[in-house]
This record gives sequence, C-alpha cells and structure tokens, in this order.
Amino acid sequence: MPESTDPVRHREKMQKIKAARDRMMETKTGEKGLIIVHTGAGKGKSSSGFGMIMRCIAHEMPCAVVQFIKGDWTTGEREFLRARFARECTFVVSGEGFTWETQDRDRDIAAARAGWEQAKTLIRDPAIRFVLLDEINIALRYDYLPLDEVLDFLRDEKPPMTHVVLTGRNAKPDLIALADLVTEMTMVKHPFRDGIMAQKGIEF
Amino acid sequence: MPESTDPVRHREKMQKIKAARDRMMETKTGEKGLIIVHTGAGKGKSSSGFGMIMRCIAHEMPCAVVQFIKGDWTTGEREFLRARFARECTFVVSGEGFTWETQDRDRDIAAARAGWEQAKTLIRDPAIRFVLLDEINIALRYDYLPLDEVLDFLRDEKPPMTHVVLTGRNAKPDLIALADLVTEMTMVKHPFRDGIMAQKGIEF
Repeated sequence: MPESTDPVRHREKMQKIKAARDRMMETKTGEKGLIIVHTGAGKGKSSSGFGMIMRCIAHEMPCAVVQFIKGDWTTGEREFLRARFARECTFVVSGEGFTWETQDRDRDIAAARAGWEQAKTLIRDPAIRFVLLDEINIALRYDYLPLDEVLDFLRDEKPPMTHVVLTGRNAKPDLIALADLVTEMTMVKHPFRDGIMAQKGIEF
Repeated sequence: MPESTDPVRHREKMQKIKAARDRMMETKTGEKGLIIVHTGAGKGKSSSGFGMIMRCIAHEMPCAVVQFIKGDWTTGEREFLRARFARECTFVVSGEGFTWETQDRDRDIAAARAGWEQAKTLIRDPAIRFVLLDEINIALRYDYLPLDEVLDFLRDEKPPMTHVVLTGRNAKPDLIALADLVTEMTMVKHPFRDGIMAQKGIEF
C-alpha cells in the first residue's frame, strides 16, 4: 500500500503516531536488569550480543562475555575485545568447540560447568552490569548444564540491575518463560544454500 | 526429548553430525559480497549490524555505516565509533529522527536522498568492503527513496566482493527476493509490555 504523498495528510498521520507513541513511552518508567534470550535458527543471535557488548563499552558500563561454545572458526571479535577492551569487558571462553567436533560428552560437560561457575561469579559481581552467556542454550539443550540450576540462579541470585543475555538455538521453554525479552532470529534465506562459504566479517 | 547420556551412543551420534556437516561445508567454496537484510519487529536488527561492523574493524576490513533514521535517543555506538574507529569505519548520519518526530515528509525525503547518495559513493569505493545501511527499510517503506533505484544499484553497481547490510522493519518483498541472506527478528516477548523503559546498553 503506497503511503500518502499529500503533505497535510502525512503530517496529520505522523502527529497521530507520535502522540500514541509518546503516551505509550510515558507509561514505561521502570528500570531493571533484564533476562534476555536470542534464539532461533537465523543469524544475528551472537552478533547482536556482541553489538550490545560494544554498546556497553561505549557507555563505559563494565560487562562480560562467557563463550560456552567456541565454534570452529576464529572469532575476530574475541581477539579484538581482549586486545583492545580488556579493562571494560571480561572475556571467558569455556567451550572447546562445537559438540560434534569434540565428540566427548564428559569433556563438554566439564567445559560447560567451568563456564557456568565463572558466569555465576561475573553475574554476582556488583561492578558488572551486563553479562553475555554466548551459546549457553546449546549447553542447556544437550543437558551439559542442569536447566533448573541456571533458572534458579537467574531468578534468585542475579542482582536486580544486572542484564544477562543468553544466546543459542533451541532455547528451553522454561527459560523463555522466565525471560523478560525474547527474540527469535528466523532464517528467511541463507547463502549456504547457494554454495557460498562462511566469510570474514559476516560469519566470523 | 533428553539427549542420550551413554558415552558411546553420544560419540556415534556426534560423529554422524560432524560427518554430515563436513560434507556440507566442502560444497561451500564460493566467496562473494552479500546483500544481507535484517528485518522483522524483534530486537537485534541494528545491534547485530553494529556487531558485524565491530567484526570488520576487528579484521581491519574498512567499513561504513549510513544511518537513515537517527532515532529519538542517543546512540552510544555512534559516538564510540566516531571517537575510536574513525579510520576504520566511515559513519554518516542522514536521518533527522523517526518520521513521526519530524512530521515533515519533504525534509525526510531530502534526508533519505542525501543518505542514499553518500551510500552509493561508499559502496562504490573499492577500499570499503562492508556497508551497513541502517534503517533504510523505513525510508523505502515510506517511499522516501524509490525502491527500484536502490535495487538496480545493488544489482548492477555494487562491487562483487562488497557486502551490504540493509536493516529495518517491513523490508520490501523485492529487496528480500534480491538479497542473499535474510533474517527476520521476531519479537517473542518484550518488557515494554510490562512497563519497563528503554535502558542503556539494551536499547541504546
């Protein structure tokens, strides 16, 4: 449907939208640390997490990343954060690669456990305001970490003003139920279908 | 469905997944500059764009951002990129705020046009490998920019190895048809519903 090109009608319409939006925003006065989930099979779960980390750094909000699954390509952003923003952002890697690379359930469980113990320390730290638990949903999905333990901690021990972002496909329904903000990244089209490989700046 | 806890079965299952994945990846040998769209009503369209910009900077890939709609809150990431990474990332702001803030169609059209002219120059620049056209879908949706002109340029004049990311809700179907990689961010849950305001590090 084409938008109206009449300037007076356009102005009236936009004034209405603005008034409705201003009224809506007036009711939004609360502040609290959010539990945020990025899930789905599409792109952008981790990259928007990293975008939020860069926002925190931009605002000089101390933040942290725990990477539960390292993945099988170099992550430029990890080296970059460690080299340039070690003071602003604590970066922990607990995973040793995707689970189909290690093929060793006990080692994966130990890595997930080590990551979660560090995650708890970082979330409890009153100086840190934002913690990204990257790909933790994979560890939860394969029962490398007990879901109830993670949910209980987020519910009962997370400081009220600390934001925690949990990413990865197949987020557990009980985590979605607990979360404040949940986004599903849906793949509409992917160039892997057309024989294009993972490329620098896009996938890693 | 709980995953098998038997180590041998687990290993066999993971070996199968790895073998299938390795076969799939072997066929992915092409490299090309992608046309990427982030759309949908959910979060993460712009923040994953910024995450990709940070990846480019991490890889020392020269990149650029054209912001078509500035939004009505300060964007910490803009000041941060300009202050810290002006050499790596060219940052252009063409919009003057959401369209319901300006309420002036002619001014919005002029701003969108100015942004698009700069976008074309940046995309044509052989030194720049990645260009983020942030919220351009809003300008296209309101017909502030002719869709055909944008599609023709991307199809015919974009250098083959340059990636272009176009973000914003309501991406036009013809843009989705042209794109290589399209992700829809779907809102599953949003704290605005519960009276929580926009917060630093999350929304801006």
